[in-house]
Amino acid sequence: MVMKRELIADWMGELDAFLDREVTSLYDFRRDIHMNPELGFQEFRTTRQITKRLEDAGLVPKVLPKGTGAICDVGTGEGPIVALRADIDALPLTDEKPVSYRSTAPDACHACGHDVHTTVVLGAGMFLADLAARNRIAGTIRLLFQPAEESLLGALEVVAAGGLADVRRIFTIHCDPSYEVGQLGLRTGAIIAACDKVRVHITTPVAARNGGESPELVHALAKIITELPEALYRRGGPMSSLSLVWGMMDAGPVAHPGRPVGIVEGTVRCLDTEVRKQAPELIASVLLPLARTYEVEANLEYVYGVPPTLNESSCVNIFREVGSAILGRDRVLTAPQSLEGDDFGIYLQSVPGAYARLGVRSPGQSAYGLHQGTFDVDEACISVGIRLLALTALSALARESS
Amino acid sequence: MVMKRELIADWMGELDAFLDREVTSLYDFRRDIHMNPELGFQEFRTTRQITKRLEDAGLVPKVLPKGTGAICDVGTGEGPIVALRADIDALPLTDEKPVSYRSTAPDACHACGHDVHTTVVLGAGMFLADLAARNRIAGTIRLLFQPAEESLLGALEVVAAGGLADVRRIFTIHCDPSYEVGQLGLRTGAIIAACDKVRVHITTPVAARNGGESPELVHALAKIITELPEALYRRGGPMSSLSLVWGMMDAGPVAHPGRPVGIVEGTVRCLDTEVRKQAPELIASVLLPLARTYEVEANLEYVYGVPPTLNESSCVNIFREVGSAILGRDRVLTAPQSLEGDDFGIYLQSVPGAYARLGVRSPGQSAYGLHQGTFDVDEACISVGIRLLALTALSALARESS
Repeated sequence: MVMKRELIADWMGELDAFLDREVTSLYDFRRDIHMNPELGFQEFRTTRQITKRLEDAGLVPKVLPKGTGAICDVGTGEGPIVALRADIDALPLTDEKPVSYRSTAPDACHACGHDVHTTVVLGAGMFLADLAARNRIAGTIRLLFQPAEESLLGALEVVAAGGLADVRRIFTIHCDPSYEVGQLGLRTGAIIAACDKVRVHITTPVAARNGGESPELVHALAKIITELPEALYRRGGPMSSLSLVWGMMDAGPVAHPGRPVGIVEGTVRCLDTEVRKQAPELIASVLLPLARTYEVEANLEYVYGVPPTLNESSCVNIFREVGSAILGRDRVLTAPQSLEGDDFGIYLQSVPGAYARLGVRSPGQSAYGLHQGTFDVDEACISVGIRLLALTALSALARESS
Repeated sequence: MVMKRELIADWMGELDAFLDREVTSLYDFRRDIHMNPELGFQEFRTTRQITKRLEDAGLVPKVLPKGTGAICDVGTGEGPIVALRADIDALPLTDEKPVSYRSTAPDACHACGHDVHTTVVLGAGMFLADLAARNRIAGTIRLLFQPAEESLLGALEVVAAGGLADVRRIFTIHCDPSYEVGQLGLRTGAIIAACDKVRVHITTPVAARNGGESPELVHALAKIITELPEALYRRGGPMSSLSLVWGMMDAGPVAHPGRPVGIVEGTVRCLDTEVRKQAPELIASVLLPLARTYEVEANLEYVYGVPPTLNESSCVNIFREVGSAILGRDRVLTAPQSLEGDDFGIYLQSVPGAYARLGVRSPGQSAYGLHQGTFDVDEACISVGIRLLALTALSALARESS
């Protein structure tokens, strides 16, 4: 049962009043975080700024063991529990924007919108704290301020700290400059790919050929780099949703007859859980004969990383219902699948939930990408995000309580 | 006019007597050098051993300015002058032979036979010194003990020190385990390829694509590595004798959106002087559109190294005449072309000469390659080499004087 439209309309009035009061201060909060970005597991100041605001709202945040990130329950403190996740870390980039809130750190920048995510979950929490103070929340809404999303390791810290204990549903949003402010992108099933690491190490056997000449190591490694992704595509088929992209390679100077070594490392992205399970075997079945073709010995390491982000359908429906109510049905769009990787998938392995794409581009502005030093948002997205997450949490709680 | 067979037969008697006296001591000399190998421009001890023996033979060697390598004139001290070249440096390898004269240096080994070349030119010089003492040399035979052949830089030192001044012809031999002792390999024209360096540096333009995603640098570099040599082969044709072999590559981790860089370095070998002249332009004409295909920017550096070793026909004929006389006509073979590179080609740019391949494999033994820690020779090759070079020098002098 999805929360009635009338109920959503009722909360919306309260949200409007809250935002009238707080939105300027929340913009300031976002700009302060933007000016002071911190990389993964270094978010000490960011965490202090968050917990101070939460405490000002009468809440009792718990900082995670490493001192970065926090968990904060809002409501009765009892079940049902619904979680909202924000990621709080910045990227190792130089901020290139000529704005007053430009990053003051030379090599850190909120170029992925985590400052917005943090502000949105904080704002939703402040609003919900208001409601909770008036005993109008039937259950608990857990705010997860997660460190180190960019390294895809922070979610594990939150889980280890008990962040998912008794959580029935979990939601998050991510800034998306391919959407205008006021648009929302949703998708049931795989919305973001799994992200695994692959490492190929090759050596040339000594005296491989008659006369002792070594095979051409650099050429062999380059053949593996170019042929392996293509063979995976041919073997798995164009719909296998298996992508191998190389990130670095190294094959040092080949001494006269030593035993030269070449290394290439890449990322395997996959939207399909079954295909992903078979990926190491599939890659090895291409790599090993390919290596034999070029007379080198190949060794494969495959390290599973974050799983795909698999949105659960009833959670996507809650997002859709709320989004339609606050934005209009025609502004809730079907999000495309992405290969970018997000450790939100780790939460979804044990708790049903959904990841939504929040429009952040000013209307009329042309589309641009995340992860650039010029990345910025139309701050109107902050109110949209707060409305969306606060109402989604309340709606999900109502569904759990019914 | 080639020296008469009768004259050669006459010298051969003297050579037999010389070798009966000296060959054991020359084997000892070779083994001492083999036990104490020195890398390019570090051949201080080797140079001292050489000059000591030359002085003992009544000669006056001049050490090169860097203290390694020597030049020593034998004969009247006047023209005509004919030069014999030995290369004296070792390879950075571990000697793997279980022999009494195994290298005592952990990372140096005479695995290319330069100890034999040195001994052969020394032996020829000692024999010629005997003749000179009896005023039986009409002109001068210049012994060039050249350092640092493996780095292809030593010949320049010899030239800079005046080693080629007034030289009319120049000859050298190189150990070749594909031939048995008593066989000789000769070829007119290009016998060894030019050896140049090529370096490709690629960068990805920032925000190359809509959305700011960088092109795949590693893939682009691997495509250049695999496609460039093939395209050269297709463009130049299979007979263009242009070979590009990569030696190292590096494309470090690709940071989120920086400006990643990839490098690959290789060696261009070419037997044809005209094709070699066009090589940089030909490579660029393949590289630049290939780079555009993969959305990277490519920069090409082409550094000309040693030229091809181009044997002059009348010098080859002298070698052939002498070789036929001392070994039998059926043991003088046509040597195949090699891509390995030798800085003897530098001398041949200003002086006509010839480079011959000296059989060093024991009869019945199977063929093997140079540049391995197990490389060794049948020491009987030393006598053959001395006979060959001494008679070739005398024959060449006779031709110049006639």
